[in-house]
Amino acid sequence: MSYKYEYPRAALTVDCVVFGLDEDDLKVLLIRRDMEPFAGRWALPGGFVHVDETLETAAMRELVEETGVQNVYLEQLYTFGDVERDPRERVVSVAYYALVKLSDHRVQAATDAREAAWFSIDDTPSLGFDHQNILATAHERLRGKVRYQPLGFELLPEKFTLRQLQQLYETILDRMLDKRNFRKKILGMGLLKELDEVETEVAHRAARLYRFDKRKYERLTKQGFNFEI
Amino acid sequence: MSYKYEYPRAALTVDCVVFGLDEDDLKVLLIRRDMEPFAGRWALPGGFVHVDETLETAAMRELVEETGVQNVYLEQLYTFGDVERDPRERVVSVAYYALVKLSDHRVQAATDAREAAWFSIDDTPSLGFDHQNILATAHERLRGKVRYQPLGFELLPEKFTLRQLQQLYETILDRMLDKRNFRKKILGMGLLKELDEVETEVAHRAARLYRFDKRKYERLTKQGFNFEI
Repeated sequence: MSYKYEYPRAALTVDCVVFGLDEDDLKVLLIRRDMEPFAGRWALPGGFVHVDETLETAAMRELVEETGVQNVYLEQLYTFGDVERDPRERVVSVAYYALVKLSDHRVQAATDAREAAWFSIDDTPSLGFDHQNILATAHERLRGKVRYQPLGFELLPEKFTLRQLQQLYETILDRMLDKRNFRKKILGMGLLKELDEVETEVAHRAARLYRFDKRKYERLTKQGFNFEI
Repeated sequence: MSYKYEYPRAALTVDCVVFGLDEDDLKVLLIRRDMEPFAGRWALPGGFVHVDETLETAAMRELVEETGVQNVYLEQLYTFGDVERDPRERVVSVAYYALVKLSDHRVQAATDAREAAWFSIDDTPSLGFDHQNILATAHERLRGKVRYQPLGFELLPEKFTLRQLQQLYETILDRMLDKRNFRKKILGMGLLKELDEVETEVAHRAARLYRFDKRKYERLTKQGFNFEI
């Protein structure tokens, strides 16, 4: 190979942290490596960036190839460049992350037949490379983001109860929230439209249903706010 | 050269967006390129990452080499990887940004004798590569950050007036703020300690001096808050 600039260059990879919401559990999508280094160990899906594709394209391609998961909105997280992070050679990795509804993204047979699975975030196996660190960074970013951007549009059914919405926040933040306080704050943002409907087919007292005000939701996504929960 | 993985690989660079506060003006540090492509054009300081240095080290090294500016806390901004962003070959750039007090960082003769200068953010020359886009991304990030992190500890004198602090916010946000509203909000955060001193040697009525409560400042930097200004 010849380059315009002949000097030793780092290899460039992408890694994907895909969080999946599964009722009241937050999971992360991992693959089991079949090659050295870390053969047999679990790791984040990812791989080398082709010289003619964008970083986003590489991330989406690797995710599909290794897990079968597609149509995920990947957001750039951070670029990890410690000199010794890969035992093979110098590898710099641009990490991406996403949050999806797990039921929409069951793991399919991946094209390269690697094993892929969802793990509860509290119970992940020991990961190869610096992937534990990448995962922790993504988890922290996700919890931070909940505080200044609305959450739930693509994660809840179109009509939902305040209990469902609170559970969503509790799952991501990994702590219980005060019900009265949560309701007061979330309703105060004007993000929700109260419907003239209640839940059906429930054993307990049927709760009021809500839906998001799409316009307000988009505005708050853009502007940000502060949800002190 | 031989690599563990023989495939065409992108080159990796870093670029630095250093904002400088100069009284009531926000400036950005640029260098004039002496080589193609974009020879004679202004651009962000930056350059190729050595295979044995971290990304942060590369960013700080390039900044010193090209501008003489040092001891700046560079924070990672975003990684720019459009396929056509560099006319020479595929180059992925990890961008960093910082905000400094301009008077602490006068431009010195750079070691590689390139021309370096501070430009008002409202009056920058046309930049090479996609640096206009990198600059815009950094500027947006800076304005956003002001809303959820305290500002001013390293930018103001130890004792300052509320007018000085307001001017700092106005310069970064590039708009006038309502004085009463600003004071009410900033004092409400408990971030400031009112001193038993007033300005000296001023023509107008001497204003009260304040200093930051360092412990509170650090806590809010970590936790974040929401400053709806």
